[in-house]
Amino acid sequence: MKKRHFDAILVIGDTTFGNPNFRYVVGANLPRGGVYLKKFGKEPVLIVSNIDLGSAEKSQVKQTRTFSEYEYEKLSQKFERSQALILLYERILKKHRTSGKIGLFGRIEAAGVLRLAEGLRKLGLHVVGDRHPTLIEALREIKTSQEMEKISELGEKTERVMKRITALLKDCTIREDELYCQGQRLTVGIVKKHIGRFLAEENLVASEDTIFAVGPKSADPHYHGENSDLVFANKPIVFDIFPQEVGGYCFDMTRTFVVGDAPPKIKEMHELVRETQLLTLGKLRHGAEIREIVDSACENFEKHGYRTIRSLMKGDKKALTFGFTHSLGHGVGLTIGERPFLTLFTRERLRTGHIVTVEPGLYEPGVGGVRIEDVVAVEEDKVVSFSRLDKDLKLI
Amino acid sequence: MKKRHFDAILVIGDTTFGNPNFRYVVGANLPRGGVYLKKFGKEPVLIVSNIDLGSAEKSQVKQTRTFSEYEYEKLSQKFERSQALILLYERILKKHRTSGKIGLFGRIEAAGVLRLAEGLRKLGLHVVGDRHPTLIEALREIKTSQEMEKISELGEKTERVMKRITALLKDCTIREDELYCQGQRLTVGIVKKHIGRFLAEENLVASEDTIFAVGPKSADPHYHGENSDLVFANKPIVFDIFPQEVGGYCFDMTRTFVVGDAPPKIKEMHELVRETQLLTLGKLRHGAEIREIVDSACENFEKHGYRTIRSLMKGDKKALTFGFTHSLGHGVGLTIGERPFLTLFTRERLRTGHIVTVEPGLYEPGVGGVRIEDVVAVEEDKVVSFSRLDKDLKLI
Repeated sequence: MKKRHFDAILVIGDTTFGNPNFRYVVGANLPRGGVYLKKFGKEPVLIVSNIDLGSAEKSQVKQTRTFSEYEYEKLSQKFERSQALILLYERILKKHRTSGKIGLFGRIEAAGVLRLAEGLRKLGLHVVGDRHPTLIEALREIKTSQEMEKISELGEKTERVMKRITALLKDCTIREDELYCQGQRLTVGIVKKHIGRFLAEENLVASEDTIFAVGPKSADPHYHGENSDLVFANKPIVFDIFPQEVGGYCFDMTRTFVVGDAPPKIKEMHELVRETQLLTLGKLRHGAEIREIVDSACENFEKHGYRTIRSLMKGDKKALTFGFTHSLGHGVGLTIGERPFLTLFTRERLRTGHIVTVEPGLYEPGVGGVRIEDVVAVEEDKVVSFSRLDKDLKLI
Repeated sequence: MKKRHFDAILVIGDTTFGNPNFRYVVGANLPRGGVYLKKFGKEPVLIVSNIDLGSAEKSQVKQTRTFSEYEYEKLSQKFERSQALILLYERILKKHRTSGKIGLFGRIEAAGVLRLAEGLRKLGLHVVGDRHPTLIEALREIKTSQEMEKISELGEKTERVMKRITALLKDCTIREDELYCQGQRLTVGIVKKHIGRFLAEENLVASEDTIFAVGPKSADPHYHGENSDLVFANKPIVFDIFPQEVGGYCFDMTRTFVVGDAPPKIKEMHELVRETQLLTLGKLRHGAEIREIVDSACENFEKHGYRTIRSLMKGDKKALTFGFTHSLGHGVGLTIGERPFLTLFTRERLRTGHIVTVEPGLYEPGVGGVRIEDVVAVEEDKVVSFSRLDKDLKLI
């Protein structure tokens, strides 16, 4: 806070769900949200609605209060909502003798934030934003040992789900290119219901769906798979799963496999992706320049004749859909995509405590895609992987 | 837009998940988010990252573009992220000849919004917030017939899940006050795994968990139920489920039941809650004053000697935990809690097209709670219920 010249920070939201910065400072779920106020050098205070007081008391903030203590009900009766909120915040800030530069954080509606900041400024309160990475983003970036344990545990759960799905696929009968499961033609819809069930049994949710892309459709790295899609043998299947604990931490993992025999082109792509991932993992350590790592992954793909995001930057528009078309990875924590981002534009170096995905991929429209994704924790001179599942293309 | 004097609106976000205003104007899921720009009287344009172009083409916006067309990559190379974003937005606004008062919407990080608005203002672009209810909140409040159909369908799915859970409870063996399911002592953790599985089979997720509160713990209306909690016979169980389609619409439903025999106090509370719900449902129609409806629900509870949120407002602090301690309901749509809110502070009237929960409840610390919650659509002279499941207290 000192470095950013904040005298205090406010982290707010109408819920902690989908509001990672707020969830981070609170350390618990508050369905109705609240206000976290921390003055420089002081203990923070957390203000919630009466109904969330029980949840707030389980949070990591020792001092909890309710909006009623600031007479929010009376303000709500007298003023329309936007004005009542401005006056509530004014009361909170004044009651806790907060002045100077106050940073405002939390994922909330932009139109409301602009109104709130404007209203508070008119009342003489100096509410300001923050540049990227914001103070809390920067804190979230380096994981504590508790967070690491949590993510490692999520990795184990995710792998159990993935294993159960591959077991199910292996049990299918192949007739020509078609897969039958218990006499029924296997669809992506059926697979996804199983995924949902297995996730539920691990107490995980996949709020943003799961990618289960079959055949040529897998050439679009973000094609999620429609329920009506058929699952085929002898064709690539990209299975990318990114589950979350309810309101908590995330995991992210991808495997590409073929039931039956892989087409030669897919086999070639898979070998190269696997090799590139291995090469990348060998380079990750505290102090490594992220840009250079991404560059060397591109280099390895290009050496074998594939397009990459680097080719795209040099103007090769075909690299929008052919080759290695996306970033090399991203941080994982309370969200499934956060700092550090492993891209060619990234200016930072890796640091001990970073937890990132490493997910090279190759895509060939008309043929299909291959992606392998692991989650690793960066240490002083190496990485520790939270993904232990084998990476074989052929499911046997 | 005209009424609010906006010349254009920008709706933005790094994802449509957990960003209902953005999801609403786009009409599809964009995992990486984007920018929606609509000038007054013109067709909107949607700008996304290359990777989401496929998803954007499934949206309801006809004109889609990518950030690359505004040379975002070049800006990212030259400037740090906050500045690159400001310049990207400037380019977008200038390329589409946008001037005048530009409303900024979307659920994103407050610290970033304040920076972005400040940066654009410095460049002469007049970016502003909006008061509550914001333009898009007001649009979302009145549901289209397609939205109604969707929510009705979600109601059917939710009820199937609830029925499967009550069937499971009915199949349990009671030994003294204890419930055994297939020889195993039944815990809330086991029940929740089944809930997750049944939801998965309906293609639903419960990102914010499910309330399954047993016995005296149900006296806290927002106690979710810990996995280690035991399920008892002859005690109240409050089962409140609020599932969502992946990135889409929500449903919300509560039933309170007892396996075995209900304690007399719970029976009394249940009868009164049911009566109050019926009484409320009879009053809901286009034009009804929301405040008055909540007031009459309070009146009915108080008449029978229970505290309510109205008593709380009159200074009775015990009404924080005893009696009818929460609001009477809220809108349901792309979120599980949105306008209109059925509270004593609400100034609006009900309108045709509102979809709201009606969820009276009574709570008695030390004893337990009772809540019944249905979702209904407001029509000209009545409501249509999307909840058809019976409301009996005793599970037989």
